[in-house]
Amino acid sequence: PILSTYYVTMADFVACHNESYVKKYDIVNEIKPNGTFLLNTVWTGEELTANLPNKLKRILAERHIKFYTINATDIAAEIGLGNRTNTVLQAAFFKLSGVLPIDDAVRYMKEAITKTYGKKGETVLNMNYTAVDRGLDGIVEIPVDPAWAALPDEAAPWNENEPDYIKNILRMVNLQRGDQLPVSAWKDMADGTVPIGTAKYEKRGFAAFVPAWDAAKCIGCNMCSFYCPHAAIRPFLLNAEEVKKAPASYITNEARGKGFEGLRYRLQVDPLDCTGCGTCVTVCLAKDKALSMKPIASQLPEAANWEFSLALSEKKNPMDKFSPKGSQFEQPLLEFSGACAGCGETAYMKLMTQLYGDRMIVANATGCTQAWGFSMPSYPYAKNSRGHGPAISNSLFENNAEYSLGMVLSVQQQRMALRAKAEAYLEKGWNKNLRAALEAWIEGYEDDENARELADNVLAALAKSRDTGDAVTYMKENSEHFVRKSMWMYGGDGWAYDIGYGGLDHVLASGIDVNILVVDTEVYSNTGGQSSKATPIGAVAQFAASGKKTVKKDLGMLAAEYGDVYVASIALGANPNQAIKAIKEAVAHKGPSLVIAYAPCINHGIVKGMGWSTEEAKLAVNSGYWFLYRYSPELKAAGKNPFQLDSKAPSVPLEDFLNGEVRYASLRRTFPAEADVLLEKAKTFSAERYEKYRKLAEG
Amino acid sequence: PILSTYYVTMADFVACHNESYVKKYDIVNEIKPNGTFLLNTVWTGEELTANLPNKLKRILAERHIKFYTINATDIAAEIGLGNRTNTVLQAAFFKLSGVLPIDDAVRYMKEAITKTYGKKGETVLNMNYTAVDRGLDGIVEIPVDPAWAALPDEAAPWNENEPDYIKNILRMVNLQRGDQLPVSAWKDMADGTVPIGTAKYEKRGFAAFVPAWDAAKCIGCNMCSFYCPHAAIRPFLLNAEEVKKAPASYITNEARGKGFEGLRYRLQVDPLDCTGCGTCVTVCLAKDKALSMKPIASQLPEAANWEFSLALSEKKNPMDKFSPKGSQFEQPLLEFSGACAGCGETAYMKLMTQLYGDRMIVANATGCTQAWGFSMPSYPYAKNSRGHGPAISNSLFENNAEYSLGMVLSVQQQRMALRAKAEAYLEKGWNKNLRAALEAWIEGYEDDENARELADNVLAALAKSRDTGDAVTYMKENSEHFVRKSMWMYGGDGWAYDIGYGGLDHVLASGIDVNILVVDTEVYSNTGGQSSKATPIGAVAQFAASGKKTVKKDLGMLAAEYGDVYVASIALGANPNQAIKAIKEAVAHKGPSLVIAYAPCINHGIVKGMGWSTEEAKLAVNSGYWFLYRYSPELKAAGKNPFQLDSKAPSVPLEDFLNGEVRYASLRRTFPAEADVLLEKAKTFSAERYEKYRKLAEG
Repeated sequence: PILSTYYVTMADFVACHNESYVKKYDIVNEIKPNGTFLLNTVWTGEELTANLPNKLKRILAERHIKFYTINATDIAAEIGLGNRTNTVLQAAFFKLSGVLPIDDAVRYMKEAITKTYGKKGETVLNMNYTAVDRGLDGIVEIPVDPAWAALPDEAAPWNENEPDYIKNILRMVNLQRGDQLPVSAWKDMADGTVPIGTAKYEKRGFAAFVPAWDAAKCIGCNMCSFYCPHAAIRPFLLNAEEVKKAPASYITNEARGKGFEGLRYRLQVDPLDCTGCGTCVTVCLAKDKALSMKPIASQLPEAANWEFSLALSEKKNPMDKFSPKGSQFEQPLLEFSGACAGCGETAYMKLMTQLYGDRMIVANATGCTQAWGFSMPSYPYAKNSRGHGPAISNSLFENNAEYSLGMVLSVQQQRMALRAKAEAYLEKGWNKNLRAALEAWIEGYEDDENARELADNVLAALAKSRDTGDAVTYMKENSEHFVRKSMWMYGGDGWAYDIGYGGLDHVLASGIDVNILVVDTEVYSNTGGQSSKATPIGAVAQFAASGKKTVKKDLGMLAAEYGDVYVASIALGANPNQAIKAIKEAVAHKGPSLVIAYAPCINHGIVKGMGWSTEEAKLAVNSGYWFLYRYSPELKAAGKNPFQLDSKAPSVPLEDFLNGEVRYASLRRTFPAEADVLLEKAKTFSAERYEKYRKLAEG
Repeated sequence: PILSTYYVTMADFVACHNESYVKKYDIVNEIKPNGTFLLNTVWTGEELTANLPNKLKRILAERHIKFYTINATDIAAEIGLGNRTNTVLQAAFFKLSGVLPIDDAVRYMKEAITKTYGKKGETVLNMNYTAVDRGLDGIVEIPVDPAWAALPDEAAPWNENEPDYIKNILRMVNLQRGDQLPVSAWKDMADGTVPIGTAKYEKRGFAAFVPAWDAAKCIGCNMCSFYCPHAAIRPFLLNAEEVKKAPASYITNEARGKGFEGLRYRLQVDPLDCTGCGTCVTVCLAKDKALSMKPIASQLPEAANWEFSLALSEKKNPMDKFSPKGSQFEQPLLEFSGACAGCGETAYMKLMTQLYGDRMIVANATGCTQAWGFSMPSYPYAKNSRGHGPAISNSLFENNAEYSLGMVLSVQQQRMALRAKAEAYLEKGWNKNLRAALEAWIEGYEDDENARELADNVLAALAKSRDTGDAVTYMKENSEHFVRKSMWMYGGDGWAYDIGYGGLDHVLASGIDVNILVVDTEVYSNTGGQSSKATPIGAVAQFAASGKKTVKKDLGMLAAEYGDVYVASIALGANPNQAIKAIKEAVAHKGPSLVIAYAPCINHGIVKGMGWSTEEAKLAVNSGYWFLYRYSPELKAAGKNPFQLDSKAPSVPLEDFLNGEVRYASLRRTFPAEADVLLEKAKTFSAERYEKYRKLAEG
């Protein structure tokens, strides 16, 4: 047992499980003289020596450290454990640290494996036993050259021309030196406003495996980009001139279809920002998969190609951006977030930025969306070349709806004031172009599709106009409000179903024009996975160890009770077209809109792994676990049935879904009798809910 | 304009508009020497002199006060203003105080009347003009006898044997001397627990008119008692012996029907606790009305008859208490609250105490239910002869559901612990009677109908048992939990629909066995009448001066979405049988139950007056403004349609209801165009909602 309650500042043993960290962090700064350092790495020999920074080498020599490496990455892959290196490295730790006699340690580890995986069968057990043995055998001692003690520090690996925020704050915090920063480092951010688009400077490069693109097999469907949680794989279009300038390794394909004339297609991986989840491979529609996961070392040359791609000229989207493929020719303004590899939330928010990102205002509730979206010092929301991006602000868990409502009302008032000035100008203003632009703008005051164009026309006319007077001055000073804003609330199930529901309900009842996106993981992901109103029946959660006894709240139908709320239930992995249609309808609805998005989460314990989360979402829909629907007040107003069920009748047994996730499957091991009862109830509930929706859809 | 921001402590002019106050308060304590005192009273001559307390007379003489009376009560009644004496008394004030030249004052008053009532027609205008004139003419100067200066204080008019709380706190606070009390006066109430049943000591006697009973016309339906908001009229049953002992004026009728053999029936008015709303007359089912409103002076002798009635022996209820008539033979444990005359809320809570009051635990939300239920120092919730009454506690506006949930869980745990001890006893306990009682009690652990009897049997057996040991000791010490508690949350629409809805939803989703009663006035009554999610479309409210634009939230249907919540929508005035049935079903349901009760409120501005609130509730239902229904999970479990619509199709136009209430009718005066639009929308909404419920009821 570890009884100390303090943080270890000088350690006898330090292990680094990810080789990329040696270049980013002061890994051995806090190692005791004569201590032991273990590095998990694929590097050997000269490559290893070349990759270690001087400071690390110097400390190893100065403090007489015993230095070992192990290639747990390859070992785990070889024995079938994928990227799960923990058991291999645990064994190595026990062997090197000597905290227990090694035979005892091995016995304890194997007993623990038997207990944990006993019910998973021989194969899994043997895989883990082997991991222990290979962890003991795989250790390699690396001689420390005493000459290293004299090595000078290298220059910082980053560019001295980086923005101040990056140089002075982001780099320091990432070096874990944030507590040395003076308060004055934030003097220009006193109101809490921080620069966005800073995640791209991190280049974490921690994935063991990243996708490699096989251009010959690619059919250009863009599904990899559409579903990539981290915006680390994207299609780019090149004109002939750009193709000529491209590096030799920069292969391109013919870009077929209307609008693509004269362009070549390139799918570009960003190896240093990829988290290695493998989703792109899963979703690849090419017959023999145009993507395959390769060790990151082999793909590092692609980093330069990524930079080349980013420098390409902007091109008008040759397709409708409101389609899964077409959306990917838009620049994502959410990239390289701190979300888990394979996160089921970020693809929604990334897509939102491709559709509305240059004129969105978002209030974000505490939860995972904040954990990956606002992880100081790195902000993944970004700006386009015009400097437009989502204005996003994080609120508390319990008040996000209220917080957002204030923003919505404020923007409404500011735009109304601007319109009043425009109308004042139109009463006697003489400039024909400005008049025309303002008239068109007032006409399209609530037009979402042409919002940017209408505003741009006014801005251009305003800039050229030599008019003076109150109205013109006011319009120039408040020109940011010419573009209609897309107002959003973001949050997870913990916010929307539970702790923030009182406020959410208030907004739903208000009739006010605001859009709400709930990424529903059903598991209060970021707050500890406790049972809530979003927890489905039978799921194991904190405070529901023997399975949740009551059914999940039907948030969508509660909202639909108001009659004037647009409601949609979507699942990106199951039906991307329906999801995009729902988002577009939500924006078009001039009242509250609620979009509830199914989001697979690492806390679900998806047995196949997070790289399969899109398939999991499909299974959720096909098994009657999750239903796709849209409720439209516009249809109601037109005398039609407002409710459209977009799911088909369940075609596979509910168990097929439940058994594939630890949150359900584990109940059978811990409370088998309860599992039987709750499974039956879950099936009844699923059937009842489908029946309810089917009836509603029939009117 | 009154510009002073301070409280006047010594006044030139003091008026007392209610003669009963001269005996309760130090009315002239703060009058300046040579000042003026005006008393509104029906007393004249010697009756007046006899009724004035010595202390008041002494101050009048000592300070050389000019003393006047006026009989505004009779004047207002005469000219058709009912009990609205304010204009008469205002005119008298201007004449006596001289703050303005009287001709100016009269002109201003009449102009204000024209402005306020102009649209109400000549009759109303003339009535009010007359009130001004009569206020000037009706003043009578009363000579002050200098000898009064020597009068000694009388003894306090109350009994010296009253409980300490009454003597030391209630009387002092009611004399407006509360701020002179030391903190130590509350030393025995340090945990916030206060004595209940204290409102009966107040005997406010402020009604100008109270009902008089005509025994010959009475049919004994008990409707007057059922609907009385203040428990100030009740049926009593007398045996032959009691009839003999009754005072001469104590008339009784034959009590007919099964179970009434050997009993006489008496309807008793409590004139000193009646608030004079006249509801009892409205609801009287006798052909020529067995009740009529009379000046209070004529009915004061009934006060003694009321005391005689209370002293009668307790009799077993000859009827089913779960019926409107039968319920009234149960002692109300809510009486003489501080609610407005004619309050539409208290009759619900009074009825609850007649059905479950001796074993209820209630958490009450801030709002009117707290204003009239917890108005320190007077508490209207009461105890029966065994000392049993509702254990009721007031919580904040925003957390009542959470607060109550804690109580529910605590009581559940305590009863489970008691049951465990009972089971432990049954393993080896030898006492046959105790064993039988405990076995029956465990069998009926959740039986509401026989809860008291089952507990009483255990208590009796426990008292007789000479058993010792842990289990018996524990059961004796925790015997309060043998009786199954009826667990309730009370609150208004402000709580349930709005500020406390987040917590309420949490409870509804919990599956826990708790009952919720929402008295829905739709107007956030106690908090200032602001617009909320409970405000119906078209109603004028704070922040909705031009009428509420969105429809009222369908709280009941939101709750029903959970599937395992019992939900009922009731209106006592419209259908008392349905209301009682719903309450009984709510209690029987072993999960969350929500009863939403329509409650007419003085803030509705019911044109006919609060004495007609029961008729107003009927009209609400008949016009499709309010719907009666019940949603029963038990029916669902039995494979039946869980939704029962208890309202018939609307039979009168919605306008008939809306036009009768100022909250709707006033919109036509202030925003006529808006009124047209919203009326149409309200009609559409009413039709849609009826259609929705009808469909649901058809399954």
